[in-house]
Amino acid sequence: MTIRVGVNGYGVIGKRVADAVRLQTDMELVGVCDIADDWRIGVVRDQGVPIYSPSGAARAGSLEDMAAGADLVVDCTPKGVAAKNAVLYRKLGVKFIVQGGEKHEVTGHSFVADATYASALNRPSTRVVSCNTTSIVRVFGALRRAGLLRRARGTLLRRALDPWESHLGGIMNTLVPEAHVPSHQGPDAQTVDPALDLVTMAVKVPETLGHMHFWSADLTGDPTRDEVRAVLSASPRIAFVRESEGLGALNAVKERMLDLGRPRGDLYEVAILEETLTVANGELFCAYMVDNQAIVIPETIDAVRALMGREQEAAVSMRMTNQALAIAAR
Amino acid sequence: MTIRVGVNGYGVIGKRVADAVRLQTDMELVGVCDIADDWRIGVVRDQGVPIYSPSGAARAGSLEDMAAGADLVVDCTPKGVAAKNAVLYRKLGVKFIVQGGEKHEVTGHSFVADATYASALNRPSTRVVSCNTTSIVRVFGALRRAGLLRRARGTLLRRALDPWESHLGGIMNTLVPEAHVPSHQGPDAQTVDPALDLVTMAVKVPETLGHMHFWSADLTGDPTRDEVRAVLSASPRIAFVRESEGLGALNAVKERMLDLGRPRGDLYEVAILEETLTVANGELFCAYMVDNQAIVIPETIDAVRALMGREQEAAVSMRMTNQALAIAAR
Amino acid sequence: MTIRVGVNGYGVIGKRVADAVRLQTDMELVGVCDIADDWRIGVVRDQGVPIYSPSGAARAGSLEDMAAGADLVVDCTPKGVAAKNAVLYRKLGVKFIVQGGEKHEVTGHSFVADATYASALNRPSTRVVSCNTTSIVRVFGALRRAGLLRRARGTLLRRALDPWESHLGGIMNTLVPEAHVPSHQGPDAQTVDPALDLVTMAVKVPETLGHMHFWSADLTGDPTRDEVRAVLSASPRIAFVRESEGLGALNAVKERMLDLGRPRGDLYEVAILEETLTVANGELFCAYMVDNQAIVIPETIDAVRALMGREQEAAVSMRMTNQALAIAAR
Amino acid sequence: MTIRVGVNGYGVIGKRVADAVRLQTDMELVGVCDIADDWRIGVVRDQGVPIYSPSGAARAGSLEDMAAGADLVVDCTPKGVAAKNAVLYRKLGVKFIVQGGEKHEVTGHSFVADATYASALNRPSTRVVSCNTTSIVRVFGALRRAGLLRRARGTLLRRALDPWESHLGGIMNTLVPEAHVPSHQGPDAQTVDPALDLVTMAVKVPETLGHMHFWSADLTGDPTRDEVRAVLSASPRIAFVRESEGLGALNAVKERMLDLGRPRGDLYEVAILEETLTVANGELFCAYMVDNQAIVIPETIDAVRALMGREQEAAVSMRMTNQALAIAAR
Repeated sequence: MTIRVGVNGYGVIGKRVADAVRLQTDMELVGVCDIADDWRIGVVRDQGVPIYSPSGAARAGSLEDMAAGADLVVDCTPKGVAAKNAVLYRKLGVKFIVQGGEKHEVTGHSFVADATYASALNRPSTRVVSCNTTSIVRVFGALRRAGLLRRARGTLLRRALDPWESHLGGIMNTLVPEAHVPSHQGPDAQTVDPALDLVTMAVKVPETLGHMHFWSADLTGDPTRDEVRAVLSASPRIAFVRESEGLGALNAVKERMLDLGRPRGDLYEVAILEETLTVANGELFCAYMVDNQAIVIPETIDAVRALMGREQEAAVSMRMTNQALAIAAR
Repeated sequence: MTIRVGVNGYGVIGKRVADAVRLQTDMELVGVCDIADDWRIGVVRDQGVPIYSPSGAARAGSLEDMAAGADLVVDCTPKGVAAKNAVLYRKLGVKFIVQGGEKHEVTGHSFVADATYASALNRPSTRVVSCNTTSIVRVFGALRRAGLLRRARGTLLRRALDPWESHLGGIMNTLVPEAHVPSHQGPDAQTVDPALDLVTMAVKVPETLGHMHFWSADLTGDPTRDEVRAVLSASPRIAFVRESEGLGALNAVKERMLDLGRPRGDLYEVAILEETLTVANGELFCAYMVDNQAIVIPETIDAVRALMGREQEAAVSMRMTNQALAIAAR
Repeated sequence: MTIRVGVNGYGVIGKRVADAVRLQTDMELVGVCDIADDWRIGVVRDQGVPIYSPSGAARAGSLEDMAAGADLVVDCTPKGVAAKNAVLYRKLGVKFIVQGGEKHEVTGHSFVADATYASALNRPSTRVVSCNTTSIVRVFGALRRAGLLRRARGTLLRRALDPWESHLGGIMNTLVPEAHVPSHQGPDAQTVDPALDLVTMAVKVPETLGHMHFWSADLTGDPTRDEVRAVLSASPRIAFVRESEGLGALNAVKERMLDLGRPRGDLYEVAILEETLTVANGELFCAYMVDNQAIVIPETIDAVRALMGREQEAAVSMRMTNQALAIAAR
Repeated sequence: MTIRVGVNGYGVIGKRVADAVRLQTDMELVGVCDIADDWRIGVVRDQGVPIYSPSGAARAGSLEDMAAGADLVVDCTPKGVAAKNAVLYRKLGVKFIVQGGEKHEVTGHSFVADATYASALNRPSTRVVSCNTTSIVRVFGALRRAGLLRRARGTLLRRALDPWESHLGGIMNTLVPEAHVPSHQGPDAQTVDPALDLVTMAVKVPETLGHMHFWSADLTGDPTRDEVRAVLSASPRIAFVRESEGLGALNAVKERMLDLGRPRGDLYEVAILEETLTVANGELFCAYMVDNQAIVIPETIDAVRALMGREQEAAVSMRMTNQALAIAAR
């Protein structure tokens, strides 16, 4: 029997989750719930998906109606709203997933497939961590589990706004650093992998395509670049792009995603710029791109399977997800 | 028998033409020819399309080889190159289409489906005019043929660069007007519809999403807004978007195209901002968006059919193209 | 005796007015009033200017105190606030000037030096119209008074945000047209010159340097370009810049202002791009730049003199202002 | 007797050096030499400064003529040109300064006032290092000389283009990382202070206002934040700006410079964002702004005095320069 998934909050993440659910052979989308009623809802309504609203007014029903007919709700509502909705999901006994805008405490479990799939099995709920944190755990969690990482220090360049909302407010011809150091991503990554020693600084930059991270790290032992790269390239959710092939900037990488026919040009992988990956004297340097709109989509799909206890092995679920989303091993 | 089409020049237009050809039931893509060999060519090669190069070095063959195996070549090479290739196409007796960067004289015929399909029938070649000119002929050609237009004066805001190349050179935090008035689009539209009385001014703006036109026009007679709108909405390649639905800016319109699953988020239609369409006292005002990467794609497909003489009626070809590209009547 | 001027609202316009007042030999700055207390106020306080606040808390005194010690208050507070302050100014019998964000009705008189200096003489108050309207009246008012203008239709590209606030909200990689046609500038210009036949459309563009207007106009008679240019160049507040000299874009014009040592790089003039000024067959086309932060400063200084009745002739006041601000006849 | 200074190359740096020389009581500007003849040269010619050109055609004379009449030439020509001009300066026996685009070997000496004033005394020539390197030596050189620094790792966000040229080419809505790690600034800083252990990564960002650096450093001993801050604030060329006062982004800091009446809004100081300066567990984190157009101007003035042997003490020259440029101790 397919897993019946409802999506609450049809924004940047919600619409991608809804589409990704429909691409999985073991899941079905039972409905979408959103408070808004504009062209965005119109698109998915025209595709025949039942549309709910929190109160149910002028829709197929209320959030409660949708949740009651689902095995699991993926809550992609704005920061803080999902924490309130959790009460309803618990009352109904429906499993749920919240996104990285919520605090760890909302579910008591934080999810990145590589790291915490096993501990999520059959839980009532989990939190898929934010785009930046997901990328950090994929990269530095892998190095730590391989026994290579002592500590990492990163600078995170954050796109100021998503494209769809870029007429509503943003930054123009400036840089806006986060005044507080460390920025929240380091501590957040420790909710998934407490052994990570990370400090991050963050700055908003005037572009809409995605984030970019620049890292320096101290390694354990004195591994070669090949050894480090082998650990990273073992994950299909870490990709390498090369400036020498014309893929040395965010816009080019996004264009490649569109050319590949990826829905909305989504980049699900952490895209490490190959040439920047430098290992010498026990130190590592690298720069990578994070598509903040897309990177958590495969993790969310895996989290569905983990909570439902459908696949016991992270690797099996990840392979199914990757295949459905055309994330290739390389 | 399907029309065998080769595409020479695999850039912004070429790759879209290649994909659109593959979506037509009466056409097949026999190959792509390009001088470059980077990630962009890699994507289409991985899809199993034969790749040619001008000289044939390290490829399936030369441009001549590709052209010899095709009924028609769509030449999407940079400005001025197609004019030289025309000599080869003529020598081989293969039909060909050039794009709007070339002069009218290269083929002696300029193409917008609404206006010049009939005169293109069975010709050896034609030129699909530029994105801006295509939009102008669609909108003001329709009004003129309906007997409503006396003259139009427009300001064209041109995106400074396409997204894929936006790391290579552009403009930042400034506006760059074209010093020469009129800009070339007015005279260019007259190569398709000589009866149009148009003057345009142009300015480069710091964004990558597409062009936007602002027009004031003097009408003939004193038509109502409804009469004018009826003429425009008769064409499925003119769409209306509404600010009241959240579609009042370029980025939102593009997001909608991505949400609709359009390849690369392409907008094939002229998208008139409904609220700006104002008709009073014999004058018309309106603003519309032009997706410079996509608008000429349906015209190019129609031009293929016209040159090959496959469909005698513009309306029939346009309906086939629209259906294949999911351009809806509305 | 010098005119004692107080400035209420120390933002983009207020700080420039305060500085300009201090440059006039017949005026003195008696104080600045603002609700904020951040680095901006700190700069002018460090210059020894008395600082007031609406309530007077922790300052030299209240707005009422400042107004009571002034002959005239220039109110540069945000839209709508000045309308309320007018009650106080009237109660105190102090003359006042509001800015273009306020409605004409607040003072019953709208000011552009060229057009309405005479009717402002000895009035209790006036409104200096907005940057865009000021530019329109300078250019098209001059043509109309010369008997050359029948009507003008314009597209106004508006900088989305001022530089100082560009980290707070803006637009990114998009264009945002005003959905309503006509935009307000046309009717607003008629509050100064009711005989102007103008229609404008407006669009927000992602830059911070200033506005740019593109116009087509129908002329009366069939004047030559030289005749039209002579009318425009008669005003020292209309400047011509040339692409052929490297001044064909907003950023280059602003750089020139900085190089000239203008305070804050301010451009007080309407800067017409010489090459775009085209006159043929009774039509005129042109493009010009408007520095929205600076263009109303000289008008405000002239308005002070007009209300105080110090100079009876607009030309005399304008010459004094121009000299103090280094606006050269050319 | 005043030092006679000629400036060769009247671009972003050259024009600022020329203006700064004119502000020093112990220097005079004998001329400016440039190959171009556009509005930029026009401004300085109108100020009565003799204009030379490399060949002397249609000018006051040739570069050789200008150099022959000078005690010292500051060469601000584009990268690589000054290296060729050095032959002429040496032939004429005139002292000279090159900018950071040139290699250390061109003069055999690299200059930052804090670090290498003494070794520059009476030399025939020196190189004022680049904007980024100057900032690095000011900050980390100070910490190293205080015995506090073990090593520093930095991410440098580079403005893609200067404002004056931002219509000519830039980057739009993307980030362009430097593929090579380390970027050149670390090794370059060692030409001034060989004991610095630095690695930098760099990325071009779509803004024009200046650079921004983000650093993590390992300290020697376990100093408090106060101890570290005391070392940094001892230099008047390191300033602290506070987000809590509204100065948390590049654009706001630049606006403050304009409000202060600084010529062209120049920021000569490294501007550390106070709140980001974090010291804990032997590590330091901080972010600062570098005005790439202005930061090397005071160093260049000091370099003039050092080469001429006018002031024996760095501190004395720096105080003179700071006073002339209104760089305040704080």
